[in-house]
Amino acid sequence: MDSLKAAVFMEPGKMEVHEVDKPKIEKPSDALIKIVRACVCGSDLWWYRGISKREANSLVGHEAIGVVEEVGAEVSDIKAGDFVIVPFTHGCGHCAACLAGFDGDCLNQEAGGNGGYQGEYLRYTNANWGLVKIPGKPADYSDEQLNSLLTLADVMATGYHAAASAEVKEGDTVVVMGDGAVGLCGVISAKLRGAKRIIAMSRHEDRQKLALEFGATDIIAERGDEAVKKVMELTGSGADAVLECVGTEQSVDTAVKVGRAGAVVGRVGVPQKAEMNTNNLFWRNIGLRGGIASVTTDDKNILLDAVLSGKINPGKVFTKRFDLDHIQDAYEAMDKRTAIKSLLVISEG
Amino acid sequence: MDSLKAAVFMEPGKMEVHEVDKPKIEKPSDALIKIVRACVCGSDLWWYRGISKREANSLVGHEAIGVVEEVGAEVSDIKAGDFVIVPFTHGCGHCAACLAGFDGDCLNQEAGGNGGYQGEYLRYTNANWGLVKIPGKPADYSDEQLNSLLTLADVMATGYHAAASAEVKEGDTVVVMGDGAVGLCGVISAKLRGAKRIIAMSRHEDRQKLALEFGATDIIAERGDEAVKKVMELTGSGADAVLECVGTEQSVDTAVKVGRAGAVVGRVGVPQKAEMNTNNLFWRNIGLRGGIASVTTDDKNILLDAVLSGKINPGKVFTKRFDLDHIQDAYEAMDKRTAIKSLLVISEG
Repeated sequence: MDSLKAAVFMEPGKMEVHEVDKPKIEKPSDALIKIVRACVCGSDLWWYRGISKREANSLVGHEAIGVVEEVGAEVSDIKAGDFVIVPFTHGCGHCAACLAGFDGDCLNQEAGGNGGYQGEYLRYTNANWGLVKIPGKPADYSDEQLNSLLTLADVMATGYHAAASAEVKEGDTVVVMGDGAVGLCGVISAKLRGAKRIIAMSRHEDRQKLALEFGATDIIAERGDEAVKKVMELTGSGADAVLECVGTEQSVDTAVKVGRAGAVVGRVGVPQKAEMNTNNLFWRNIGLRGGIASVTTDDKNILLDAVLSGKINPGKVFTKRFDLDHIQDAYEAMDKRTAIKSLLVISEG
Repeated sequence: MDSLKAAVFMEPGKMEVHEVDKPKIEKPSDALIKIVRACVCGSDLWWYRGISKREANSLVGHEAIGVVEEVGAEVSDIKAGDFVIVPFTHGCGHCAACLAGFDGDCLNQEAGGNGGYQGEYLRYTNANWGLVKIPGKPADYSDEQLNSLLTLADVMATGYHAAASAEVKEGDTVVVMGDGAVGLCGVISAKLRGAKRIIAMSRHEDRQKLALEFGATDIIAERGDEAVKKVMELTGSGADAVLECVGTEQSVDTAVKVGRAGAVVGRVGVPQKAEMNTNNLFWRNIGLRGGIASVTTDDKNILLDAVLSGKINPGKVFTKRFDLDHIQDAYEAMDKRTAIKSLLVISEG
């Protein structure tokens, strides 16, 4: 059997590259994809840091672009040779969740169907609808464009999901909680939806700079009640929409307080704490929406066009690049915050 | 000084009618209103039953229609002789909350500006924008129409706020939690917004009947997980929108579980418990919106027209009528559930 190189989680703080069996088509709805670029996600740090459990020797990663090598018998919309975004969620396209535009909550997701995306090849389930076709071939795109296309597998779609969940509309004043790659993509998304004023909560200079480049009009470095005070000074009565891209108890609490009456908090930061005081929502008519992103739906309809036309350049969140053999360095750069997001350049496709 | 008759709370379980001083214009933004009809609200039962505290000898009530007797110097849109809906909230019409359509959270509300609405006269603050003009005079309307107009002061607007917060749209499948007057008005509202299937959670025969008359297509008498199971049997994967018109912990929990991925729960039931587990929201992209109703905004734009054209008849929630002298009976009928909602007929205007 053919083998391939893939990133493997050994123990907290330790990543290695191993030769593993190349995956193959197992179900008629599968596709086999040769990965072109992948990356490390902030959420990968949870198990890298030992905060959440993960099995030793497991394949990792959930964001990639690649070229289809082979498809199963039922796959008709995608064929060998297609250049594709490989979304981290696997919508089937025909269940109630997918039909309503929430493919991140697809009722037919297949757990464990995939190896990790941080490797040379990947078996992808629900390929017919879940993959997003990119016109042409990888060689048709610049380095910067490839990076922007890669963000559509998760981080840009997740930032957009925060903005869509918060119902950001033309002319809005928006607060974005979080200056990680998702928060920065939230800034891009707020601008893409027509926000007039975008207040980014950020305390790191490199991220503040990128936030301003992406469309932020104001930066607030304070946290907690001091941050709430600053937003009220800037806006008078609070933001029309709030993007919560962190998930900590303090960030969620602040997000609820910086909205004006009737504002919606769109959250994509995985909640650190399940219980929250929702009286702060009720008495000011603050809405709370969001969750796992609708990657395929939003990419097909909005985000791919915006990247292809050059309207948005989310690939700038990749501030360091690595090859697969330097996977440990890629994780360390994220862990130590020397990179906003680590890119993995894997093949030419 | 002139006196008037008004309902007075003496102690839990005991209401009386007293002669009290007639209110007068105190501020240039005030109006003095002669009450035509008023009513008892489910939320009045909280202090009537001694569950919440209320000062003895206090005037009560927050829902009425009436005729303007006098206005302050700054009131230009309303004049003496106008027939009006007297909303329970007092939007100013020009703050950020009112401008965004959330007048229930008006930033310029004046606490204590009013006597109770369950009496012969009322001083109303923010009269210029907060009151809603009804064409003609009380004598132009049938008994049934007057009752429906009265519901626009709170209960119908609150039911509508649940539906608007839940973003009910044409063709939706909707679950309504609660068969009190607000829940029943939620059924009317879901239908008014074009819902195709309306599942009412109700275990009382008289309320089930009215729910069906108002547009419910299905009735579920079960509660808790049994109710969730029934909704899933009926819908396959949950409702598009859920109206939470109760506020108990169980009802909110059920509301979150009966929605499909991405559904929005619109809640107007005052939360019994502040803390809730919001993981059930996040992992299924369920939204939570709602709070105090936007009475003036929705009445001016949608609800008054619907009542005047006969499209909706929410006045049917008044299943018993009383005069002011029988205020104790009016409260007892609500307390003992012999009435869905108690009407108070006070004057001809």
